[in-house]
Amino acid sequence: MAVVNMAAQPRVTPVILAGGSGTRLWPVSRRNFPKQFVPFSGEHTLFQQAALRFAPSDSQLFAPPVVVTADAFRFVVGEQLAGVGLSPTAILVEPMPRNTAPAVVAAALHLCAEDPDTLMLIAPSDHAIADAAAFHAAILRGMSAAESGQIVTFGICPDRPETGYGYLQLAHSPGAGGGPVPLAGFIEKPDAATAAALLAGGRHLWNAGLFMARADTFVAAFAAHAPECLNAVRAALLRGRADLGFLRLDADSFAAAPAISVDYAVMEHARNLVAVPFDGGWSDLGDWDAVWRAAGRGSTDGVVKRGPVTQIDCQNSLLHASDAGQVLVGIGLQDMIAVATPDAILVAPKARAQDVRRAVEVLKFTEAPQAETPRRMARPWGAAEVLTAGPGFRVNRLHINPRSALSLQSHQHRAEHWVVVAGSARVTLDGEQRSLIPNQSAYVPPHMLHRIENITTEPLEVIEVQSGSLIDDADVMRFEDPYARHVG
Amino acid sequence: MAVVNMAAQPRVTPVILAGGSGTRLWPVSRRNFPKQFVPFSGEHTLFQQAALRFAPSDSQLFAPPVVVTADAFRFVVGEQLAGVGLSPTAILVEPMPRNTAPAVVAAALHLCAEDPDTLMLIAPSDHAIADAAAFHAAILRGMSAAESGQIVTFGICPDRPETGYGYLQLAHSPGAGGGPVPLAGFIEKPDAATAAALLAGGRHLWNAGLFMARADTFVAAFAAHAPECLNAVRAALLRGRADLGFLRLDADSFAAAPAISVDYAVMEHARNLVAVPFDGGWSDLGDWDAVWRAAGRGSTDGVVKRGPVTQIDCQNSLLHASDAGQVLVGIGLQDMIAVATPDAILVAPKARAQDVRRAVEVLKFTEAPQAETPRRMARPWGAAEVLTAGPGFRVNRLHINPRSALSLQSHQHRAEHWVVVAGSARVTLDGEQRSLIPNQSAYVPPHMLHRIENITTEPLEVIEVQSGSLIDDADVMRFEDPYARHVG
Repeated sequence: MAVVNMAAQPRVTPVILAGGSGTRLWPVSRRNFPKQFVPFSGEHTLFQQAALRFAPSDSQLFAPPVVVTADAFRFVVGEQLAGVGLSPTAILVEPMPRNTAPAVVAAALHLCAEDPDTLMLIAPSDHAIADAAAFHAAILRGMSAAESGQIVTFGICPDRPETGYGYLQLAHSPGAGGGPVPLAGFIEKPDAATAAALLAGGRHLWNAGLFMARADTFVAAFAAHAPECLNAVRAALLRGRADLGFLRLDADSFAAAPAISVDYAVMEHARNLVAVPFDGGWSDLGDWDAVWRAAGRGSTDGVVKRGPVTQIDCQNSLLHASDAGQVLVGIGLQDMIAVATPDAILVAPKARAQDVRRAVEVLKFTEAPQAETPRRMARPWGAAEVLTAGPGFRVNRLHINPRSALSLQSHQHRAEHWVVVAGSARVTLDGEQRSLIPNQSAYVPPHMLHRIENITTEPLEVIEVQSGSLIDDADVMRFEDPYARHVG
Repeated sequence: MAVVNMAAQPRVTPVILAGGSGTRLWPVSRRNFPKQFVPFSGEHTLFQQAALRFAPSDSQLFAPPVVVTADAFRFVVGEQLAGVGLSPTAILVEPMPRNTAPAVVAAALHLCAEDPDTLMLIAPSDHAIADAAAFHAAILRGMSAAESGQIVTFGICPDRPETGYGYLQLAHSPGAGGGPVPLAGFIEKPDAATAAALLAGGRHLWNAGLFMARADTFVAAFAAHAPECLNAVRAALLRGRADLGFLRLDADSFAAAPAISVDYAVMEHARNLVAVPFDGGWSDLGDWDAVWRAAGRGSTDGVVKRGPVTQIDCQNSLLHASDAGQVLVGIGLQDMIAVATPDAILVAPKARAQDVRRAVEVLKFTEAPQAETPRRMARPWGAAEVLTAGPGFRVNRLHINPRSALSLQSHQHRAEHWVVVAGSARVTLDGEQRSLIPNQSAYVPPHMLHRIENITTEPLEVIEVQSGSLIDDADVMRFEDPYARHVG
């Protein structure tokens, strides 16, 4: 056992990668609101669970996190951190998706500028870890190796011959204490026979993409193995700009970085790698089958339910209803997945979980909005939910956070009616300010300069009826925006 | 072959029974909006298909129908008939559900008063018949037997050993011409072995509840075998009252009628019964498996789709999405049913279709509104659809038919905001009339007398935001209602 060293100074800065988006957890996860921001179990989203796993208050071990995310998700990140009472060290905003290598080196360069010796723990935001305390212990077991200039990878002890993951090959079997073992190599996703052999041999762990090293160790590894990535990201940081607590990387520079994973770019070439085995209930939640597996531990019939779900005689199935007003009923299901959202429903056998991405491709091809965009969209000031729409009109429910404001804006083609149904609003109409409480409304004709604000500490809910010849998100001229969005 | 006798006078009055409600087609069919009023295939509802099957314009055979329905459905019946350009002979309104016997004798007594020789064709409104012309030919084959005082039952030629139906036992095998055969008896739902034997024997037909006889023949049969039913319904008719084209049966009298099927009350005792075989694609659409079977004819993979459905590698499955804004995706489904509505989703193997009623019982027990009430509710003036609701508010989309009006009403506890999004509205607020076109709105504070009307020939759509301390359908004081609803 490693000795727990409770230094006065936190010793590890978690770097949470929150920019990704997959399609295999559709319809709950969509390109415009991916899985890490969704609660799959319990009250917190995966991203919040990842952040809480390294919460400074729980342990002297961790500094506040660095989060690397996409432009579209920066306000969700801020809001979800605030929702669990956490403040980040930094939120780095990627101008476009470039996979994990540029994200990791951006965090490393940012932390290096302050203290090259900072220990960084690279963690995806969309994985589940059942036993956080066991993970903390694994981190402590790897710490002196990381401090001495090694890159520590946390390898997951496999419990089945999984063909969907890459494997870490150890130089020798791990000892009982679970201390670091030199890494002999990476193995790509194996076929079934190979996976069974790897499992039986006891010298292979799953590669979960969890790495720890000093900031300068990471930078040196990139300098040695991926200098073009390092240079592009360094330029993007230098030319980046601070913006409302976000650090936006420069788009032109960042565009020059290759879109490549940190494994391919650096880890598979580095020689200073060790692995610390981890056996505390890890899951990548990569598809609905994995969500079922992670949540199904210990249930007798294997039925995993979330939301308003009714089941009769089901077994080994996942029933997930994301909306309180939408009931999902499963009868006699065996090894099935059924997922309901207000605008899209998925039904498939668990064994076909990988093919959800094919369905999303079909929906994209038919230009169904459900392919990528959820009905409820996060906004810097809260969320907007489309309730209904028809020719020439759209009805939204706006959830406006305390002390938040929409931009001062106008529309060419549409008028808007606002009816406050909860909380209190301050509206600005052609320069005049008014307060609206529930039961009160305001009308905004086309071309009128208008804004709606929540200056209170309570949430504000507004029903907005848009009507006009053109109902389009592009018909917004912004004149003053606290969130520095596109000024048209 | 019977000779087609195209008399100048229509010779048969269809009596369409449209008061029933089951739970096995939940969530599309609900107690407050049952399956007969839903389109399951094509553009028309089952009730409309039933009415069109006997449309006077298509054939000299039929007079306009008599419809027997429940109080809650009378406006739906009127609207759906108008929607296919039909006017009824009469709409009889049952004050409470009493099964089919009282409904049949009510229609018989009503028609007898005009002409005892009228041929009546009793037809459920929730069945599918693929070949209407073949059914017309079967009716013609039974006509002279009915005219001579027999009760003709149309027996469905079975194509499988179905255990879910009752059977008609014929005195001898039907002839090639399909003419009437004396009925030897009724057989209750058989077990599987019995059903197989009945199918093999060739002397049994399914009992579909399709009967034809003179009006006075039906009355005489009730007098002989169910006099208490006859007397109660006769009193309910005598004390009934005409109301906006409906004939409302008197509640106290009708309550005294036994709740019993016409088969049990009369047919199983009558001796003047003949059966005409029918082989033109009949289905009772009794559960989702039957809906699949009726719609699946001729499809190669056995996949039946309705609405915005995407399927990948499915077989012998039903995918039904009732709302244009809600996509349903099925992957790798075999022998499954998946049904999506805005507020409820059902997933089950076809073999478990009968158990849907169990699921509805569970939902009723948990007081889920989805058990019995759809999100979109028919109203005399159109329909109201709940878009969203929260503490102290509810948002509805009102679809108001041409030349229709809501009652003049007021509310104690809630205020209402109306925003017109399509069409043109005339609103009355405290005695003042105004016109509202799209983009315009009106505010109705609590206690204000108000009304909204569509005096145009185009549909009117209004977004209504209700807010107040109590949001409840009971909070309506009606002062003037064109539909003679409860004046509180």
